[in-house]
Amino acid sequence: MNGEDSPYMVELEGLVARLGSMGSRKVLIQSPLGLRGEAVRISQLLSGLGVASYISSSNCWGGCDIAYSEAERLGVDTIIHLGHTPFMRRDRVRTIYLECRHTDPKPLESLIPQILDVLDDAKSVGLAASIQWLDHLGTISSALERRGVKALISKPYMFSQYVGQVLGCDYSSLLPLESWVDCYIIVGSIFHALGAALLTRKMTVAVDPHSQAVKNLGEMRERVLRQRYAYITAFRKARKVGVVSSVKPGQARFGLADLLARLLRSKGFEAYLITADEVGPETLDDFRLDGYVNTACPRLSLEDQARMGKPFLLPMETLVALNLLEWGYVVENGVLMYPWGWSPAGGRIFWKILRGEEPSTGKDMRSQEISCA
Amino acid sequence: MNGEDSPYMVELEGLVARLGSMGSRKVLIQSPLGLRGEAVRISQLLSGLGVASYISSSNCWGGCDIAYSEAERLGVDTIIHLGHTPFMRRDRVRTIYLECRHTDPKPLESLIPQILDVLDDAKSVGLAASIQWLDHLGTISSALERRGVKALISKPYMFSQYVGQVLGCDYSSLLPLESWVDCYIIVGSIFHALGAALLTRKMTVAVDPHSQAVKNLGEMRERVLRQRYAYITAFRKARKVGVVSSVKPGQARFGLADLLARLLRSKGFEAYLITADEVGPETLDDFRLDGYVNTACPRLSLEDQARMGKPFLLPMETLVALNLLEWGYVVENGVLMYPWGWSPAGGRIFWKILRGEEPSTGKDMRSQEISCA
Repeated sequence: MNGEDSPYMVELEGLVARLGSMGSRKVLIQSPLGLRGEAVRISQLLSGLGVASYISSSNCWGGCDIAYSEAERLGVDTIIHLGHTPFMRRDRVRTIYLECRHTDPKPLESLIPQILDVLDDAKSVGLAASIQWLDHLGTISSALERRGVKALISKPYMFSQYVGQVLGCDYSSLLPLESWVDCYIIVGSIFHALGAALLTRKMTVAVDPHSQAVKNLGEMRERVLRQRYAYITAFRKARKVGVVSSVKPGQARFGLADLLARLLRSKGFEAYLITADEVGPETLDDFRLDGYVNTACPRLSLEDQARMGKPFLLPMETLVALNLLEWGYVVENGVLMYPWGWSPAGGRIFWKILRGEEPSTGKDMRSQEISCA
Repeated sequence: MNGEDSPYMVELEGLVARLGSMGSRKVLIQSPLGLRGEAVRISQLLSGLGVASYISSSNCWGGCDIAYSEAERLGVDTIIHLGHTPFMRRDRVRTIYLECRHTDPKPLESLIPQILDVLDDAKSVGLAASIQWLDHLGTISSALERRGVKALISKPYMFSQYVGQVLGCDYSSLLPLESWVDCYIIVGSIFHALGAALLTRKMTVAVDPHSQAVKNLGEMRERVLRQRYAYITAFRKARKVGVVSSVKPGQARFGLADLLARLLRSKGFEAYLITADEVGPETLDDFRLDGYVNTACPRLSLEDQARMGKPFLLPMETLVALNLLEWGYVVENGVLMYPWGWSPAGGRIFWKILRGEEPSTGKDMRSQEISCA
């Protein structure tokens, strides 16, 4: 759809054809905040075609958060999921992933002078964007190259599906560029860029066309890392802790939560397994525990930490709190990333530490386990 | 449990015996906010018995909101549900309902002078409480009778399971007392009493031991009713509206939502079916519709209305907005109540109006349909 008042390009002809060929009669349309106008438009279109539709108003945080349960309760035959690319290895309910790409390059183009300004004397940059802005990376790379700055665009890796794409939790596609670039430019929300900044020591520039912001995240990176270490230190003084997992399809890491709880108990903590669909400070606070470990969405530990009050550590940070891993090592390899977010291939040391099989020694902590499909 | 620092009486011996006889090995403990300390205690107890437990941190709004989906995802064999009595006619996952009654009558006793004060010259009162305070209704009734005020305690009816019990959405047990009492006294949160106040024209006194408040809700009733009518009027000017249903097991009224959407379309509205697990202003706002109809928890229309901004009408209010029912009739019969909340027996007029079979005529709008099991 590219309605006169829609800022997004959505492939409606393809959608209608696919629904027709599948014989879909009743669908659930799921979308993140910001794309719900598109969901209403699609519902209206389908209504004219005789396909019944529900629009989900539940939160939707990514391709990890597909509304299978809601779809099953409603008895729909198909989910139409807007705004994210596939993350799950298989869908429990048939799911059509429908991208919503911004059609208008202007909000991005207008930021180019600011981008060039903040780049300083970088000669080579790594470029990536969230799926909504992917069509306009060429706009930036051309402008950069005209000024003599070489622009490298990342290849799909791990959970990203397209050249140049980053997700809110997976920045691994940026790593192969590391030795070739002086700087990263990430188009999307500030958080997309913060995730990248926490993965690399290279300068990272956030470009948010929506809020018209261009920002070097160097200071923010340092502040977040200092705060994370303070929470790790605070966690060491905790006695009663919760190990939190989510039942969201792409965030369900019950095995990891169980291993972490056992490890914590072996170190003298009282550890409880806590679950939720939506994990949040409002509902965790009532347990009045001293600290939490988060095995659900890694962004929660950064975005909700201030509202949590209590430490809300990522799995690797927990190993640091237990003196099983060096903080410097986590910082070097990327604090936001789950062990399996760094690379699908490589080391098994994280899991070995977790299982108590091996002390922290090597630099090779890259796990081949991707356990959320 | 009646631990030295727990304000609740929880029958732990019975729980342990039942889990043992059922052979439960892995449970999910679910509780509303305020009772999560008990959930942690129970998890600790079960750990010592070799029963694995998850504690749910999801919101839990009542006996309508049993975490079957979460339990199914976790693969537990039993749910332990704290703080509510059974609401569902059958449980999709084996569920043990564990009451948490306040052991200490003092917070209630200390309010008795205020209660007697606010009663004015009432000679006969109807008494009810939420399950947590049920053990102490006798404390009030004795004090009242000593002052010559006759206290009548309601019988279980509809969804209430005990003498004197009211739920957050079902006050039908109060109706048989209507012609015998001058006033109702409802012990629980202010909202429990507001629900009762909206059902009756008799004076309703809220007694909240937690916040130590005693309040005649007459003014609040009038204010809420005026606001409701203002939102009904605003809804009439809407063009694009959402009919909202929840997938929560005891709130899932997809058939009602569908009927309301069809009715709205027949009256010239653009009506969309919107679903969620958690229904809330934050997630509905992004659709930018002109108004909403709520078939999920009736409390949402009162408690979240101010934050919604847009009209968020109950089904009966929607019929008023469509000029199919008199506002005065709804006020007389209780605005909070769903058609099936008034009485399980009796009239079918609500459903007939909804299906377009019959115009609004009688006073007999009591449906036998209880469609949320």
